[in-house]
Order: sequence, then structure tokens, then C-alpha cells
Amino acid sequence: MHAAGLDALWFTTEAEVRYFTGFRTLFWQSPTRPWFLVVPRQSRPIAVVPEIGAALMAQTWVEDIRTWSSPHPSDDGVSQLASVLRSFPKVGMLMGAESSLRMSFHDFQALRAQLPGIEFLDASPLVKAQRMIKSEAEIAKTRAICTIASNAFAEAPSLFHEGQTLSDAFRASKIALLRLGVEDVPYLVGGAGQGGYADVISPPGEQRLQPGDVFMLDTGATLQGYFCDFDRNFAIGHASDTAKAAHSTLYRATEAALAIARPGIRASDLHRAMAKVIGQVDSDVGRMGHGLGIQLTEPPSLATFDNTVLRAGMIITLEPSVTVTPGHMLVHEENIVIRDGPPELLSRRTLAELPVI
Amino acid sequence: MHAAGLDALWFTTEAEVRYFTGFRTLFWQSPTRPWFLVVPRQSRPIAVVPEIGAALMAQTWVEDIRTWSSPHPSDDGVSQLASVLRSFPKVGMLMGAESSLRMSFHDFQALRAQLPGIEFLDASPLVKAQRMIKSEAEIAKTRAICTIASNAFAEAPSLFHEGQTLSDAFRASKIALLRLGVEDVPYLVGGAGQGGYADVISPPGEQRLQPGDVFMLDTGATLQGYFCDFDRNFAIGHASDTAKAAHSTLYRATEAALAIARPGIRASDLHRAMAKVIGQVDSDVGRMGHGLGIQLTEPPSLATFDNTVLRAGMIITLEPSVTVTPGHMLVHEENIVIRDGPPELLSRRTLAELPVI
Repeated sequence: MHAAGLDALWFTTEAEVRYFTGFRTLFWQSPTRPWFLVVPRQSRPIAVVPEIGAALMAQTWVEDIRTWSSPHPSDDGVSQLASVLRSFPKVGMLMGAESSLRMSFHDFQALRAQLPGIEFLDASPLVKAQRMIKSEAEIAKTRAICTIASNAFAEAPSLFHEGQTLSDAFRASKIALLRLGVEDVPYLVGGAGQGGYADVISPPGEQRLQPGDVFMLDTGATLQGYFCDFDRNFAIGHASDTAKAAHSTLYRATEAALAIARPGIRASDLHRAMAKVIGQVDSDVGRMGHGLGIQLTEPPSLATFDNTVLRAGMIITLEPSVTVTPGHMLVHEENIVIRDGPPELLSRRTLAELPVI
Repeated sequence: MHAAGLDALWFTTEAEVRYFTGFRTLFWQSPTRPWFLVVPRQSRPIAVVPEIGAALMAQTWVEDIRTWSSPHPSDDGVSQLASVLRSFPKVGMLMGAESSLRMSFHDFQALRAQLPGIEFLDASPLVKAQRMIKSEAEIAKTRAICTIASNAFAEAPSLFHEGQTLSDAFRASKIALLRLGVEDVPYLVGGAGQGGYADVISPPGEQRLQPGDVFMLDTGATLQGYFCDFDRNFAIGHASDTAKAAHSTLYRATEAALAIARPGIRASDLHRAMAKVIGQVDSDVGRMGHGLGIQLTEPPSLATFDNTVLRAGMIITLEPSVTVTPGHMLVHEENIVIRDGPPELLSRRTLAELPVI
């Protein structure tokens, strides 16, 4: 903050408030109430939160907690927040890629009107640099959730079967994950189709798994708020030669990335290594992996444009995809930690050959 | 839009994009990519979305789909969006309570710089009025998810037991909900304690259910993206007289609200009716219910300050709370639809007496 010329950081979003305080609640699901955190350069953090959250915030390391009765029809925390920010001439907030402002535009305008002398500056590069490097405690949580998800995928032969609807298969996967100990499954997407699937973002429908389908599940499950994010592909009944070849290509692409993933290389180098094996740049996906932590996707992006230098402690996903035939793709994903030396695999490595169930 | 002097509505947030298009994906979990929708006053909607979402968007009623390869390091959809918005001198966007802008502040500034002649105006009142009234199709989905959640709560005696940790109890509840057919459980909070619980927003910990505890689970499960949101209280082993009395008070408070919930009365009238039975205004919660739909909480707020006139088709929660002793509370919640005549209960009415399991 000193180097960036900032007197305080100010946050409105769940991930940042949690990152700096440990405050964790599903209450963010409700758009009704805003939550604020101010992290001064030279003093302890100040939470400005609805009264309903004060008791839970008091369980974190934050001691200075200002509250108001929210929702409030005319002043939903704005004057409380302004009275805190008034002491800091230069306030850093997130303005860059992947950020948003979780308060109403009207309230943001009202805040600025109450703080005419205060300058709001971009703190995105600073916060991004901080969050990309995970502590060993964060890595341990991510390792634990990746282990549970790997165990759940190992049960695939008993969970999924020909004739099953995708929505039933998704449900079976979520139940297995919960039974094995995950806290939640905020993200579960996938698809199925002959020789590949159409996209990787659809919710499951009533389509039934057919012999020859490749069925993919991409799992974002959590433990104490930390995400895993990796997928597995399964052939139903039998696998076509093209599907086998596509899986093998993706396996070799991740091998190529694993072989060079070291501190000092760039995110774009990993993209290049995988794209070279695949022999195509998939414009529908645009990137082949990303950071991972308390959000499903975090910086950096494994993309041609992202020259972030990898450092020990970064948790990233390797996520190459390949177009099998027009409208049919395969995606593969693993989770790793950059270490001094070879990376540590957090997800249990997929088999070199497409598994048939 | 005509009456409000708006040429188009512009949205960046999941709920609004889904409401106007039917586009549904968990991909919103990733903060990386922005998604935009423009709804012109006199022509069909235009989606401006990452290429990765084009195929799924094409399955909705939207025909005009503009895409770009996202994430993009210098122009993440901004110029595409600007080229669409340029045709509309007065653009409505959400600026009011409960709204946020899901794009980076830098990109919003860049957009405005590209559109010097375009005026951005607040469309919150317009969209709020539209969304508060649910169609019969929306009500049917909400009824279905409320029925499943009611069935899951009916299994409480076999799901929860003395000595169980809260995190295991939450997990058992999620598994039961999934087994009975919900799509997801994005929101599950609760608490337990002798004679009441400390708050209603904490994640579950390793605390064990004890005889005499009141255990509460508040369930926000979904079906095709529509939420239920109601809770149930259970006494473990036996119930204290104070806990029984508190439950009875909450039951009578919701009875009082059900007795007057008709088109034409105000949201604040429901709050007043419940507060009168309880004999206190709980400043920690501040409201005693809210709208419900594709978001866990939607307008209106059942609060003293919200004078929204109820209309047939509004789905709302009745959620009174009572402080039993300092630091110990009980909350009760039901889901209803405002009808011409008595309201329709979507959640299966709780028992008048606190159930003991």
C-alpha cells in the first residue's frame, strides 16, 4: 500500500472480505444487504456491516466493527462507510478485470458525494498479486477438497450408467461428494454426447447417457470455502477411436504443461505448451486454465495474453480443450500448485486412456 | 419503458439476464467473464456474451447474439456492447437498492467514454415492479421446490440426532434434498443452542446437537433456478418451556400475517401484524420476510419502511424472529403466494407446537 500510494483498501465483494478477514457466510446469496471492509495501511481493519452480521464478524480477527440496521430505505451503510473512509485521502478499490462493485450505483454516487476530497484509485494489481500466492494453510484446504473430489470421481462406475439422465447423474455426483465430506458443490457442470459434448457451461437436462457417449463432469466443490475445480471424462459402454485420441491428446497436453510448470515461467508459456500438443487454439474457450482458491476462477489466466510470472504457492488449473468434430469437444482439467521444483498435483492424475464405464 | 422514457434496458447481472432470456448457467460463478443483455423498447433483445456462452444462449428465445473471445486483455466486450447501446439515447440500468454492476469499474468508465451522447438512467423501479409479480409458470416451479423441501424436512427425525455435528446435520439435509429431487442447495444456514441460536447466517461447525437444543435449518434449494426459502425448528430430545413459547409466538405471528395477506395491503402491514404478536421489533433482523423467486431474496421487504402494495402473484416469505434471551433467538419462515382471496401456502405449514426429535 505504501509503494502504491494508498492509505487504505476498501472492499465490497465476498471473496475479498473473506480473504482479508476470514468472514464466511452464505448470506452473500441475498442481494439485499451491502457489506464493507476497510483495510488501512497503518492500522487494523474496520468492518462496516449490517447488524445481522456483527456477531459472526466478531469471531474473526477484526475488532473494529461498525454496524447499521440493514436494509435501510435511505442510508444503507453509506454514511457509516463515509465516516470511516474520510480519514484516508487515497482509497484503493478494485477497478480492474474480474472485479465488480457490490453496492448500488446510487449508493456509490452518494458515497463519493459525501467524500469530495477523497481519491479512489485502482488496487486491483496489488490485491491480485497478494491473492495469487497461497499460504500452506490455503494449499492444505485445497488439497483436502481435491482429494475428496478425486475419491468421488473414483466411484464413477457405481454412480453413472447408460440410460441415466444427465440431471440424475449430476445429482448422484453431488450426493457422493457430500457423503465423502465436501461442504458444498457450488459449481457442477458437464455434458455428454457421441464423441464429445457441445459446451461446458450448460445445466443438466433430461438427456440420457448413451453407449458411445463421452460424459464429462467438471466439479467445483468446496471445503471451508476453498474450491477444487477439475473434470473427468468417461466413455459410456465403449469409446470411439476419435474420443480415445482426443483424450490422449488432452492427457499429453497436460503432461507438457506439468513438465515446464516451474517458478519463473509465464502463464502464457503453459498455454503455448498445451496448444502446441493440441495443434489448435480453441477460440471457444480462449484460455486453458486459471488460478484457483476461494473463487472458482482467479487470476492468472493461462492464455496467450497473460504474461504473469509463475511463483511458488500459486494454485492453478490446467484445462486444455480440443474440438473433436464441429460442435463436439473434449475438455480435461487438473489442479496443481507451483512449487520450487516440479509442481504438486492436487487432483489425482487422470488415466492416460479414456476410462470406459 | 415508453412511460419511463427509456429506449432500452441494459443488464449485467445473472438474475436479470436469466429473467429476461431464460439463460441459465453456473458459469456466473466465475468472475472472469462479463455477460450483457440489451432489451430495446421496440425490438427484440440483444445478447452480448462471451463466445463460450453463444450455443447455450441460442437455445433461449434470443436470436440476436453478439460474441467476443473472452477473457480479452484490452477489450472484454466493451466495444461490442457500445456498438449496440449507441442506438439508444436513453439506456435504463439498475442503480437502486439491491442492485450491483457486474463489470469492472474500468470497463464501465470505458463504455461511457465510448458513448458520450448516451444517457444512463435508473431502471430499478421498472424492473422491480415487473419481477415482483410471478407468472403461474414461475409459481408452479416455486411450489415444486417448496414441496420437495417440505418432504425433506418431514424426514428430520431420521436425518438429525443428538450428538451429530452441525456440519454433518447440514450435509445430511443437503443429501436428503438432492435425493428427493432438488437441483441444488445454494443456501443452507442454521444454528443450534439451548433455548435458541446466536445468529442465522453462520456456516455449520463441529458443535454437536445437545438435548434441549433448538436446531434450526433455513433452506434455499432450487429447481430450474427457482428458490424456496423457509426454515424449520426442531427441539433435540426435549423442549424447554421458553423454546415452546417462542415457537408458539412465531407460529401465531405468521398466522396473523396469513390472515391479512391480500392484494391491496402493504408489505409494512404484514410486518406490523407480526411485530404486534411478537411484542418486539427485532433490530438484528430488521425485516420479517421478503420476495422470493430466481433470487433467494427479492423485493419487497416486509419492513416498516416498505410500503409496496401487495398484488396477486407475488411470492413472499413470512419470517418473524424473536429474541428468547440475549444472544439466543428463534426464527420461523414460510413461503406464500398472494392470491385474490387467502394466500396460497407453498411451504407445508409448520406445526403449531415445536416438534421434538
